[in-house]
Amino acid sequence: MTSAPSCTVEFRARYAETDQMGIVYHANYLPWCEIGRTELIRRLWRSYAHLEAEGVMLAVTEANLRYHAPARYDDLIRVVTTLSQARSRGVSFDYLIQRVDGETTTRLVSARTDLIAIDRAGATVRIPPHVLDAFRHGKPMEQS
Amino acid sequence: MTSAPSCTVEFRARYAETDQMGIVYHANYLPWCEIGRTELIRRLWRSYAHLEAEGVMLAVTEANLRYHAPARYDDLIRVVTTLSQARSRGVSFDYLIQRVDGETTTRLVSARTDLIAIDRAGATVRIPPHVLDAFRHGKPMEQS
Amino acid sequence: MTSAPSCTVEFRARYAETDQMGIVYHANYLPWCEIGRTELIRRLWRSYAHLEAEGVMLAVTEANLRYHAPARYDDLIRVVTTLSQARSRGVSFDYLIQRVDGETTTRLVSARTDLIAIDRAGATVRIPPHVLDAFRHGKPMEQS
Amino acid sequence: MTSAPSCTVEFRARYAETDQMGIVYHANYLPWCEIGRTELIRRLWRSYAHLEAEGVMLAVTEANLRYHAPARYDDLIRVVTTLSQARSRGVSFDYLIQRVDGETTTRLVSARTDLIAIDRAGATVRIPPHVLDAFRHGKPMEQS
Repeated sequence: MTSAPSCTVEFRARYAETDQMGIVYHANYLPWCEIGRTELIRRLWRSYAHLEAEGVMLAVTEANLRYHAPARYDDLIRVVTTLSQARSRGVSFDYLIQRVDGETTTRLVSARTDLIAIDRAGATVRIPPHVLDAFRHGKPMEQS
Repeated sequence: MTSAPSCTVEFRARYAETDQMGIVYHANYLPWCEIGRTELIRRLWRSYAHLEAEGVMLAVTEANLRYHAPARYDDLIRVVTTLSQARSRGVSFDYLIQRVDGETTTRLVSARTDLIAIDRAGATVRIPPHVLDAFRHGKPMEQS
Repeated sequence: MTSAPSCTVEFRARYAETDQMGIVYHANYLPWCEIGRTELIRRLWRSYAHLEAEGVMLAVTEANLRYHAPARYDDLIRVVTTLSQARSRGVSFDYLIQRVDGETTTRLVSARTDLIAIDRAGATVRIPPHVLDAFRHGKPMEQS
Repeated sequence: MTSAPSCTVEFRARYAETDQMGIVYHANYLPWCEIGRTELIRRLWRSYAHLEAEGVMLAVTEANLRYHAPARYDDLIRVVTTLSQARSRGVSFDYLIQRVDGETTTRLVSARTDLIAIDRAGATVRIPPHVLDAFRHGKPMEQS
């Protein structure tokens, strides 16, 4: 039995991402999820930019976010991204967004996004088999 | 039986809101929901800015979005916002985001957000009764 | 002697556009300039989207902003946009961003952007003559 | 003779930061400047969050950006920030934003921002002398 592929990225919350409540504006966690997803795709296969170069785009069809505690300016943020599902026409990711403070981590947001593969005209397409294979099993052995 | 209070706002999608997929970036629908919520609160009571001036803030605790079709640059966007629940410590809103093209409307996104009332320190508080009353029944008669 | 073409748009400052200083984040005035520019182009010619459909994009090459007073959440904002220069390969716009409060207006930001015409590959191109003519003289007589 | 203090930060361009032109939207370089400024202040003194905690905020009064070449999604971005002026009531920063591709760097944007010190009410104030001293000379010797 193998666990779902996941990866961790860290960065600091930007001043631009705060609002007048003094916390990170709730929409700004979705770009953080995208950063996590981008890195996981890069590690499992290669840059998502290459997928778009092949004419396949992953469009978000559903997003669910639960806000547990607020991020603040300059917080060290950790995003743990897990590829929870990889189907021929779509993928789903789970995200755990945490604040890191020395040895302590605090759960800020948990989220999930569903994405489908589309072409430039917006029609649903299949994820190329070699990409789907990488998503499911990681890079082929000769690259690992 | 009374229906839930709702309101409609319209504006154009900004170039800044698009991404390289040629459509509006998925996170940018949440600020559109906020525009709808802001207007509904203004019509039911008064500007949300006055609520913050009373020391009560409405913080988003959960957001769910389903993307049906993409918005594009310069599309005329309509947001129909409904106050689906008003409790002593929180409110929930439903949103229908449409593209308007003459007589035709196309459903783009349906969304829901849950918000709780907090004070400046982040502690949960009650929504002031006169505000909750306005949320539930609209403005008092002498103002309508 | 004719004055430079200009137009005025109004909208409200969004909560999403504020930062923890309690005012609109300084980068967010540039999308407001883009709203003004979009409307001025629409009135002088037609939607900028049509220009991109012809394969010509206007890319910003320089932006200068002076911040005189801050915009705040829910302020009624007015952007006065003037087409200050229209050359065969580029255009310049001046912006005056104001807060409107009844009969009173307060100057918030003055700005200028220079844009050049490029094709999809990023190469500099000429603005199509019929577009440049509209920029300089407004729509042809039969449309006015 | 001493050179002006500067620092370098690197990160990747986000998908959220692109627009339908396929490049990073021009307003999104200002938050990148803010990331550079944040890191330089942290290295010269301590986190800017501490300055706000002392009741002193640095508000941008002028921003000038020149766009030389576009950043694209997933580009490795380097921001070189220099503190060009430190006065009792304000500071100025210069920025060089580059794309890093192995050994090659490409100049994307050069920018400058002027900031003044204000209190919570928005009145101009002096930068605390110990902060100004750190800005001018770096951290005191015992910390270096």
